[in-house]
Amino acid sequence: MEQTTQQHNIKEMASTIETHLKKESPSSKADSGHPAVIDSVLLNGPTLNILTAENFINQSMAIIMEDAVKRATDVREKVCEWRYPEELKELLDLELREVGESESKILQRCRDAIKYSVKTTHPRFFNQLYGGMEPYSMVASFIVEALKPSLYTYEVAPVFSLMEEAVLKKMMEVIGWEEGGDGIFNAGGSMSNMYAVNLARYHHCPDIKEDGLSAAPRLVMFTSQECHYSISKAAAFVGIGTKNVYVVPSDNRGKMIPSALEEQIKTAKSEGAVPFMVNATAGTTVLGAFDPIQEIADICEKYKLWLHVDACWGGAALMSKKHKHLLKGIHRADSVAWNPHKMLMACLQCCAFLVRDKTNLLQRCHSAGASYLFQQDKFYDVSYDTGDKSIQCSRKPDVFKFWLMWKALGTGELEKRVDRALVMARYLAHEIKRREGFRLLMEPEYANVCFWYIPPSLRNLPDGPELWNKLHTVAPVVKERMMKKGSMMVSYQPHGDNVNFFRMIIISPQAGRQDMDFVLDEIHNLGKDL
Amino acid sequence: MEQTTQQHNIKEMASTIETHLKKESPSSKADSGHPAVIDSVLLNGPTLNILTAENFINQSMAIIMEDAVKRATDVREKVCEWRYPEELKELLDLELREVGESESKILQRCRDAIKYSVKTTHPRFFNQLYGGMEPYSMVASFIVEALKPSLYTYEVAPVFSLMEEAVLKKMMEVIGWEEGGDGIFNAGGSMSNMYAVNLARYHHCPDIKEDGLSAAPRLVMFTSQECHYSISKAAAFVGIGTKNVYVVPSDNRGKMIPSALEEQIKTAKSEGAVPFMVNATAGTTVLGAFDPIQEIADICEKYKLWLHVDACWGGAALMSKKHKHLLKGIHRADSVAWNPHKMLMACLQCCAFLVRDKTNLLQRCHSAGASYLFQQDKFYDVSYDTGDKSIQCSRKPDVFKFWLMWKALGTGELEKRVDRALVMARYLAHEIKRREGFRLLMEPEYANVCFWYIPPSLRNLPDGPELWNKLHTVAPVVKERMMKKGSMMVSYQPHGDNVNFFRMIIISPQAGRQDMDFVLDEIHNLGKDL
Repeated sequence: MEQTTQQHNIKEMASTIETHLKKESPSSKADSGHPAVIDSVLLNGPTLNILTAENFINQSMAIIMEDAVKRATDVREKVCEWRYPEELKELLDLELREVGESESKILQRCRDAIKYSVKTTHPRFFNQLYGGMEPYSMVASFIVEALKPSLYTYEVAPVFSLMEEAVLKKMMEVIGWEEGGDGIFNAGGSMSNMYAVNLARYHHCPDIKEDGLSAAPRLVMFTSQECHYSISKAAAFVGIGTKNVYVVPSDNRGKMIPSALEEQIKTAKSEGAVPFMVNATAGTTVLGAFDPIQEIADICEKYKLWLHVDACWGGAALMSKKHKHLLKGIHRADSVAWNPHKMLMACLQCCAFLVRDKTNLLQRCHSAGASYLFQQDKFYDVSYDTGDKSIQCSRKPDVFKFWLMWKALGTGELEKRVDRALVMARYLAHEIKRREGFRLLMEPEYANVCFWYIPPSLRNLPDGPELWNKLHTVAPVVKERMMKKGSMMVSYQPHGDNVNFFRMIIISPQAGRQDMDFVLDEIHNLGKDL
Repeated sequence: MEQTTQQHNIKEMASTIETHLKKESPSSKADSGHPAVIDSVLLNGPTLNILTAENFINQSMAIIMEDAVKRATDVREKVCEWRYPEELKELLDLELREVGESESKILQRCRDAIKYSVKTTHPRFFNQLYGGMEPYSMVASFIVEALKPSLYTYEVAPVFSLMEEAVLKKMMEVIGWEEGGDGIFNAGGSMSNMYAVNLARYHHCPDIKEDGLSAAPRLVMFTSQECHYSISKAAAFVGIGTKNVYVVPSDNRGKMIPSALEEQIKTAKSEGAVPFMVNATAGTTVLGAFDPIQEIADICEKYKLWLHVDACWGGAALMSKKHKHLLKGIHRADSVAWNPHKMLMACLQCCAFLVRDKTNLLQRCHSAGASYLFQQDKFYDVSYDTGDKSIQCSRKPDVFKFWLMWKALGTGELEKRVDRALVMARYLAHEIKRREGFRLLMEPEYANVCFWYIPPSLRNLPDGPELWNKLHTVAPVVKERMMKKGSMMVSYQPHGDNVNFFRMIIISPQAGRQDMDFVLDEIHNLGKDL
């Protein structure tokens, strides 16, 4: 019945159009300038006034430059302008209405959105594993937003398809895959890890793509207790199940214990389960620890398991001659996740998933061969149409944000950024050890500096439950105060047996030694009465 | 061994720092202005010259305005500047080197990237299910790129967290979920469909999240032969398996046949498989067909199956009082995928996944509860921290691109855009029927206009294999010629038994009747000698 109604509507519409056109003017090349109105809609000419639009964009760009670039990165300005949710809702007037607002009102809305947003490009934003302003990457991202390309086919994204190929190739060189491989930029490190799990599974048993898992044996994967939570999310999502992620203990520095990995593999086998992959983490989220890839690779070879290295955070160290030893053995990995949007400062998001395979495994695993997009009778080499490697359809050309920056800075300057971030972390650790009332969780291996602040009132308590229980409440209050003041943003978290501690990450070349000193001074100022 | 070496390095580094600091100047508040150099790295002050950076950004903005906004949308300019991959590689000089390039060189690289990219905002870009320039959304996307927020927590993205809530709520109202629901913006319609499959599975059997599928019965889902390829990609990815996607026949207009769906469900059950979801498509990719949601919902209720509606393309019709009947019954869906980046013209990507459930199913299904990010001892209501609903960790605030545009235009103007796009499609269909040498595949139900161009040499051939075989080769050649000329971009594809035909989609308010006439004239000009 539904269908019949719709078909009727269509016929009615078609006949309406014909009537209108007859009444108004029969369309032909000769008279296509005449107005044609159908159902009160004017079909002639554009309805968007492009000059008005340009004028609006120009005005907005001035605001972006002033508020979202200059002020946002100015150390004298606030990192955030804290408001509670209910208060902010009123300030923003989020309701969407029937009638639109004036241009000047919309420009004010842009200013407000910027004002109440956290300034992640501020020199004192240390809250996440990214931060700071990268002018080249920022400009690249503006260009992408203006052009709106989508990376399914060479036809629609010629420039960015080729760039992706070139950058992935270069990243593979850096990893040490001398014979190349394959890869794809995608919407986040978590997605890269999901790609890895699915690809490892496909490699283990290609039939699962068609048959699903219900007929398959219980597949088991391994990762350390310190790994990123996306590994367990991936296992749940692809149908492996979180119980089948065997968690391997880490040592007191947060590194996977290889002998414990081998034991877990043996246990799984003895249970009749089928191990298929190991995830090693290069740069854990909280401690910045690096799993020993060489020893893990030995075990993976011995048991024929896919080795994935989650180097989303730690991959940047590969750019540094001094620090790349942290990832020694990564060339033996089957796949690698690496986010240039973290320490290398490409604009969010910029995440690469790389695969050592050269037999088109990525495409075979994910292809669906849509004939409307991936036509085989095109007039160019369709191997440049990379869309069928992806689990996305529309895909942003995130690679450009990395390419332009790399082109502008050169490998040398990227290396210096990494070296400086790590030296800065060591300086901060040194200061923490030197200052009264600060206590380092452990000597940093990478850029993560983890520490407690102990207010004067707790300094005479002996090391024991009372101290730790009280200390657990300190970081949340200091965090609340710093956000309400807007002076800086530093994250805290509990971790294993450790009560809440601060975690500092220094990435941005806008931050200097003075900012490190400021962070410690400010934590003390905010927490000394606790 | 690896570990020991690394620990040694760290100690060495720490002692190096101490030596340096002693030699140079003991750090303290009093003398923190003194220079500190460690391992040749200057720690004092920022190393990024913010004024230079701002100057570069200003110059780039002028280029973006001139080339990526004004020229890209100018109907007198080319839609694309075609180059073969090898030629384009040379023009772009993609190689990444040790030493960076000068600012003027980088500005030239920006110009080149724009020049050789396809202008998807050009009034004559009709190649995809999106197109055209949307000034408000474009500005919103620039702001997002400058601010680099990531939507895990309210703390880091207060403005955009609240906007997401408000916009999702409004979209749910439009769908007709009077009591609200839940949802998330994510990295593409394909991802939304994956969310749907995983959520439906979790709803059917929550244990699968932990246990995986190996112990589960064979789960089966249903979709029409005309559905988007992401449904089958999703089934493969989440471990259901492509074979367990039962393909339901569609009628000659591309709509799922409800009785055939019920038959498939019965067949699956008789095989001992367990049906758990049906995907209905509202606006198929090629034909723009709408599955009859009411009748499908009846069947889903009868068999207790999750109903997902893939309205990525067709969802826009919900904004129009005149056309929302196409999705009649969508309020009965359990989940909906809807991409405002298509007909509503939000900048790429802007994709919502919406769920009718109000019991926090989305969060329970996807949560991993990372303690470093989703601390429960925060000083604000952590229900605003939406990150654990997502399968991503970093997530872009795509909602802002939709919110600002909606705020500027109002619901009324969005409705007009949809109405105009559909009237334009009907005008084009009328013209195709009127003109010699053009043949409509079928009367358009939505904005997709599918047609063949028959060159004069084939016009006298009788309807039969010879005509169709020859016709199959016409569209690829016309496409090649239009791209090399750069005059417009229109897609073509084969579909079922139909040989290659053109598919026109008119979205942009920059396009008018003259552009429709131009498309037909130009196809004739480019193909009349074939």
